[in-house]
Amino acid sequence: MGTARSVVLPGPLALDGGTQLAPVTIAYETYGILAPDRGNAILVAHALTGDQHVASVHPRTGRPGWWHRMVGPGRPIDTDRWFVVCANVLGSCMGSSGPASAAADGRAFAMRFPVLTLRDMVRAQAMLLDHLGIGVLAAAVGGSMGGMQVLEWTATYPERVRAAVVIASAARHSAQNIAFHEVGRQAVMADPKWRGGDYYESDDPPAAGLAVARMAAHITYLSEAGLTEKFGRRLQKRPNSPEGAKRFGFDADFQVESYLRHQGISFVDRFDANSYLYITRAMDYFDLAEEHGGRLADAFRRSAARFCLVSFDTDWLYPTAESRTIVQALNAGGAATSFVELSSPFGHDAFLLDVPELDRVVGGFLGAAT
Amino acid sequence: MGTARSVVLPGPLALDGGTQLAPVTIAYETYGILAPDRGNAILVAHALTGDQHVASVHPRTGRPGWWHRMVGPGRPIDTDRWFVVCANVLGSCMGSSGPASAAADGRAFAMRFPVLTLRDMVRAQAMLLDHLGIGVLAAAVGGSMGGMQVLEWTATYPERVRAAVVIASAARHSAQNIAFHEVGRQAVMADPKWRGGDYYESDDPPAAGLAVARMAAHITYLSEAGLTEKFGRRLQKRPNSPEGAKRFGFDADFQVESYLRHQGISFVDRFDANSYLYITRAMDYFDLAEEHGGRLADAFRRSAARFCLVSFDTDWLYPTAESRTIVQALNAGGAATSFVELSSPFGHDAFLLDVPELDRVVGGFLGAAT
Repeated sequence: MGTARSVVLPGPLALDGGTQLAPVTIAYETYGILAPDRGNAILVAHALTGDQHVASVHPRTGRPGWWHRMVGPGRPIDTDRWFVVCANVLGSCMGSSGPASAAADGRAFAMRFPVLTLRDMVRAQAMLLDHLGIGVLAAAVGGSMGGMQVLEWTATYPERVRAAVVIASAARHSAQNIAFHEVGRQAVMADPKWRGGDYYESDDPPAAGLAVARMAAHITYLSEAGLTEKFGRRLQKRPNSPEGAKRFGFDADFQVESYLRHQGISFVDRFDANSYLYITRAMDYFDLAEEHGGRLADAFRRSAARFCLVSFDTDWLYPTAESRTIVQALNAGGAATSFVELSSPFGHDAFLLDVPELDRVVGGFLGAAT
Repeated sequence: MGTARSVVLPGPLALDGGTQLAPVTIAYETYGILAPDRGNAILVAHALTGDQHVASVHPRTGRPGWWHRMVGPGRPIDTDRWFVVCANVLGSCMGSSGPASAAADGRAFAMRFPVLTLRDMVRAQAMLLDHLGIGVLAAAVGGSMGGMQVLEWTATYPERVRAAVVIASAARHSAQNIAFHEVGRQAVMADPKWRGGDYYESDDPPAAGLAVARMAAHITYLSEAGLTEKFGRRLQKRPNSPEGAKRFGFDADFQVESYLRHQGISFVDRFDANSYLYITRAMDYFDLAEEHGGRLADAFRRSAARFCLVSFDTDWLYPTAESRTIVQALNAGGAATSFVELSSPFGHDAFLLDVPELDRVVGGFLGAAT
């Protein structure tokens, strides 16, 4: 139902790492109709392995968009009212410039692609909005890494965001966050098929390493209680053992093992290993306070946006304390801020799942937008 | 200071998986002197990657024993009073029978080694105590997987344990525990050098995969707060950047990355990848209640031991709630039980580290032993 497009922006885009990128291709999708005064645009920012197909069928997996319950006619982000833009982040693999893109020599960048920051991704989104003729966003909305981009938007382009919705997110990556990402990167790089990143011509990518990385990450997206509720210690049912019995082997014996393996295997069909390295790296470098002299409140000093912060009580990846830190910084600057911790058994993944309270919070906050 | 020995027990040892193992080699170390009445023996059970060198220099790493602060003359487990026995668990790689051992055909068992349970490990320890002429233990003591073995001891040999010390442990492996172990196993198995387990003749083991497994596991041993305190987001100091600066690359840029990589690399020098598979599998199968009709209290019904349970407030691998579950089951049976949750920033690893309160609790509990 969305309109998928791609644009090549001449650039150059000046990157935090000191280099420049040109040209810059951005793949994006839009929903709804841009108002004549161009005042009804909402930017939705996606998470680490998300994409621009927020409410459309994913072209590779055939599955519904990752936030189809949030975006659409009559949905909390109502496309009968808002013009919704979602862009594949720079460094990703769904059409925007990234390590799989062709460099000037015609070969894939691979690890020659510049290391990015979330601010670089946001700068590229701003270039896209310029191209679309959108000056000011009615709102920027995102969960997880999407929420980090929303925070970057209010800090980097304070005059261009009227409202900000930041869900299950944080203003910086913690040591534990970095540690989990590093495990994932090492899993990819330990795969001999990674070949220093130069696997694009082999048609034989480091799938095993990327699957392990995804498995490790996936555990952090769920809560201990949620895993217990969903799987507990239940064993796999098999033809000769409908109730499940221990097999004293190394096949997936517990249901949670089978589930995790499936998560790993299905991920590699839709995602590029080098993009995983680059985007996790960008997240690890994210520390909004550090970009503003070490004081988080200063990041928001020039913003006039209304803020809506949401956390989930079982999210241990970006726990409620991280949202509270942001709220305190916003309050210090007198920003209009609402904050709610929602209860959910789903851990970090709750922002993507069926949590009606989240719909009401987002819909209510945007409904009051002008 | 200990006396390292190894014994080949004729067996056969009947395993929970339905097969038998014979012969059974057990490598162990003892400290102190066995009293004439053989009544002063304490069994120390080690954790997943531990070994029998509890208070002696590790023969491969040259580092002090893993619990040298707990075991020795004048230490909480005072070897002037107690005869301490610690055996390398079955399935491990420090001298006891395991996948690296030679099978009847002279070649390493590799994945032909039978899948074990913690109860199998405990049965092998009981055979060792028979060999040593020790009927009843004054105490069994262990942390993490060691604590699980202690619980198995009181359930399987209730007449042979007078006191049990269970630290930072659990009566079953949770779905999240299994999930993390499965990631580690998949990391090993994804390494082409694993070769289905048959790497012993190549002198080229799956080091990269095992290092990734260890890195992922190591995060679970530490607390988020501990990682933040120890590393935060501090960058690596380099010759041209004594204060640390972002390098916009994929080298270990943050100190926590460098630390994790070191943990992974140093682990592979001292541990066998297949042993890691087998021992994690045994832990995943551990569910003491399930072994006793689904009711944990029934596991302890025949035990007359005094119990001492200790948990740490920042341990999220085996959180305090797991210890409370055990305490409730013990209380239901009227067992003499003491329980304390200690405060420590070190997460699960606290049981191995400098926590003076732990010394006092263990020393005090054993000091009252007869």
